[in-house]
Amino acid sequence: MDTLTSSLLVSELPDIAADILSRVRGKSPRVHCLTNAVAQNFTANVLLAAGAVPSMTVAPDEIAQFVARADALLINLGTLDGERRQAAATAIEAATTEQRPWALDPVFVDRSRQRAEFARRMMAMEPQVVRLNGVEFAAIAQAEPGQDALDRYARDQCCVVALTGATDAVTDGERRLKINNGAALMGQVTAMGCAGTALVAACLAVEKDSWLAASAALLAFAVAGECAAGRARGPGSMAVEILDALAGLDREILRTRARVR
Amino acid sequence: MDTLTSSLLVSELPDIAADILSRVRGKSPRVHCLTNAVAQNFTANVLLAAGAVPSMTVAPDEIAQFVARADALLINLGTLDGERRQAAATAIEAATTEQRPWALDPVFVDRSRQRAEFARRMMAMEPQVVRLNGVEFAAIAQAEPGQDALDRYARDQCCVVALTGATDAVTDGERRLKINNGAALMGQVTAMGCAGTALVAACLAVEKDSWLAASAALLAFAVAGECAAGRARGPGSMAVEILDALAGLDREILRTRARVR
Amino acid sequence: MDTLTSSLLVSELPDIAADILSRVRGKSPRVHCLTNAVAQNFTANVLLAAGAVPSMTVAPDEIAQFVARADALLINLGTLDGERRQAAATAIEAATTEQRPWALDPVFVDRSRQRAEFARRMMAMEPQVVRLNGVEFAAIAQAEPGQDALDRYARDQCCVVALTGATDAVTDGERRLKINNGAALMGQVTAMGCAGTALVAACLAVEKDSWLAASAALLAFAVAGECAAGRARGPGSMAVEILDALAGLDREILRTRARVR
Repeated sequence: MDTLTSSLLVSELPDIAADILSRVRGKSPRVHCLTNAVAQNFTANVLLAAGAVPSMTVAPDEIAQFVARADALLINLGTLDGERRQAAATAIEAATTEQRPWALDPVFVDRSRQRAEFARRMMAMEPQVVRLNGVEFAAIAQAEPGQDALDRYARDQCCVVALTGATDAVTDGERRLKINNGAALMGQVTAMGCAGTALVAACLAVEKDSWLAASAALLAFAVAGECAAGRARGPGSMAVEILDALAGLDREILRTRARVR
Repeated sequence: MDTLTSSLLVSELPDIAADILSRVRGKSPRVHCLTNAVAQNFTANVLLAAGAVPSMTVAPDEIAQFVARADALLINLGTLDGERRQAAATAIEAATTEQRPWALDPVFVDRSRQRAEFARRMMAMEPQVVRLNGVEFAAIAQAEPGQDALDRYARDQCCVVALTGATDAVTDGERRLKINNGAALMGQVTAMGCAGTALVAACLAVEKDSWLAASAALLAFAVAGECAAGRARGPGSMAVEILDALAGLDREILRTRARVR
Repeated sequence: MDTLTSSLLVSELPDIAADILSRVRGKSPRVHCLTNAVAQNFTANVLLAAGAVPSMTVAPDEIAQFVARADALLINLGTLDGERRQAAATAIEAATTEQRPWALDPVFVDRSRQRAEFARRMMAMEPQVVRLNGVEFAAIAQAEPGQDALDRYARDQCCVVALTGATDAVTDGERRLKINNGAALMGQVTAMGCAGTALVAACLAVEKDSWLAASAALLAFAVAGECAAGRARGPGSMAVEILDALAGLDREILRTRARVR
C-alpha cells in the first residue's frame, strides 16, 4: 500500500468527502451532461440534490457554449444517437480548450462493437475520470477487472478509473481505494451508475485532485444509497429516497457509515 | 367459451403468472426497448422492478447488435422521430433473424395519419403481441374494439391482441381473457401503458406461449397497480408505489387479488 | 395600480384559479408539448395530475397533426436539437392556423447566443404567454427584470410575461400580479419551471384571458409546491409530493394559502 492510501488517508476520506460535498453546495458548480435519454431526468435531480446545477443540451451547434459556461462535463455513451456522437467530440474539445475537467461513462460498451470503438476514442481524449462496471471495463480495456489491470489501465490512460459494483474501486494507478458502502437496491433503479458519474463530474468541478474527487463522489453516493435503502420499500421508493439522502448527507453520516479500505 | 379459457385455466392464471414472473426474476432477461422519450425512464424502472434488464439505445447503426444480445424487443411508437423510425425497422429485422419475440405498442396511432400507416407496416412484420387502448385499436384496425373485432384482428394479424382499459382483454383469436384488476390512478401516471407493454416483452422472453405471456404480464401489472393505489395518495406516489408493488408481487398476492374471467 | 389588479381582483384570484383548475379537470384539454428531454416525463405527469392530457412527439412531419388535435401548445427550448428546432416552427404555424393558444419557455436562453436568437424569433410568432426566470428575461429582453421592464416587454411583444422566482410576477403590460407562494425545494427538482409552463398551457386551453390563465396556473403550482414542501423530506420526495398536491388541490386550499398582491 502506498503512502497516499495509508490508513491515515483512508480514515480521513469521510472528512475529505464532506469537505468536497460542502464545496459543491457552496459553489453550485454547473455540470454540463451529455447523457442518455433514460438517465437525463434522474441525473439532473441527483446533481440538484447534491447542490450542483445541471444542463443537458445535446445540440452540436450550441454544446460548446454550454461547456464553456460550465465548470465540468459529463460524457455518457448510453442512447448514442448520431447527434450525441457529434456533440460528444465538440463538447470534449471545448472542455479541453477551456480546461474544464470531464468524466466519461461508457455505458453498455460491451453490447456493440461501434460503441466500444467510440469509447476508446473518447478515452484517447483524456478524461479525468472514467466510471464503469466490470463488464464495461472488460470490453473497453480488454482485460478482466482485477486490481492490477485497473491500475495498469489508469496509468496507460493517465486517467482515474472508478469501477463500481458490490465494492467500488478507485485508482489512478498509484493510489487505490475500495468502498464497501452501497445497497443492492441501487442496482434496481435505472441510471444509478450514470447519475453517480455525474456526481463525480460535480466533484471534479471543485477539487483538482481527480482521484480524491472521484473517491469522494462515489463514497457520498454509496453512503446516500445505504441510507436510502434503509428507508425504501422497493426500487420505486429507493429512487426517491436516495435524492433525499444525498441532499441531507453530512459529515457525521459520512464518518459513521463509511467503510473504506 | 373455448377449452383454453375454461374456468380451469382462468383459475390457474394467477399461478401461471406467478411462475412466469419468477422465471423473469430468475433469468433476468434482457429487453431492448425502442420507446418514446417520455416513457424511457419509467419503462426501464418497471423492467428492473420486475427483474428484467432494460437497454434503450435508438441509434440505427448499433440497435441490431443490442437486439441480438437481448432476449426480447419492445417497439413503442411514441415520439416517433426520424432516427427511431429507421431504428424500428432495423430492430425488427434483427429480432426476426435472431428469433427474438417482440411486442408492439402503437401509442397515439389515432393522432396522425403517418403514425397509423407506420403502425400498420409494423403489424405486417408480425409482432407476437400488440398492446393498445380502445382508441388506438379503432385507428389501427379500423373497427370498434368489441370482442369479435379483437378476435378477428388477432387472427388476421397472427398476433396476440392485448387491449387495456378499465378492463383488460387478451386474445389470440381463439383464447380470450378479461382482467378486472387495476386502478383509476394508473391512468394519471404517464407511460403506464408503455411500461405495461415492456413487461409483456419481458414475459415473452421467458414464455413461448405469447398469449400466456401477455396475460401474465397484464395481470401482474394490474394487480401491482391495485396494490399501489391502496397506498398512494395521488399520481406522484402512485408512480413510486407501483414499482415497489411490482418488485414485491408474489403468488399469494396474485391469487388473492386476481379478478380474471 | 389599475382596476383589474385592484384589491378586489387580488382577493378573487384564488377562486378564479379554482374555477380554471376545475375546468381543466372537467374538460381534460389536450396539451401538446414540444419540450426538452429532461422535462418530458415530469411535465407529462404534472399535466396528468392537473387533469390535462399530454402528448409529446417531436417529429416534424406529424407534429402539425398533433397540434391540430390539441387544445394548447407548449414550446420549451431546452435540449434544442435540430429536429426540435424544425418541429417548433411547424408546431407554432399549426397553432396559429388552428387558433390554439401557446406558451413559450425559453430555457437557458442565457447560455448560448443561437438559443437567444432562436427564442426572439419564437417571441415574434406571438405566444400568448412567455414563462421564464430573471436570468432568462435579461437575456431575451436585454433588460433587467424589474416591473417596468416586464410591463414594457409584455406590451412590446403583445404577450403575457410570467416571471418565476422567489416571487412570481405576471403582467400583460397593464395588469400585474405578484404571487408569494412556492417553496425553496421547488428549485431543487429538475424541470419544475418547465412543468409550470405546461400548466400555463393547460389553463390557456380553458381560459381565453391569457393573463388570468397564467396567473391561475402559477398560483396553483406555487400553492401545490408549498403543500408538497410541508410533506417532503428532500428534493426526491418533493417531486412526488407536488404531483399528489396538485391532484388534490381545491378551492379551500387555494383560498387559505394564496399570498397574492
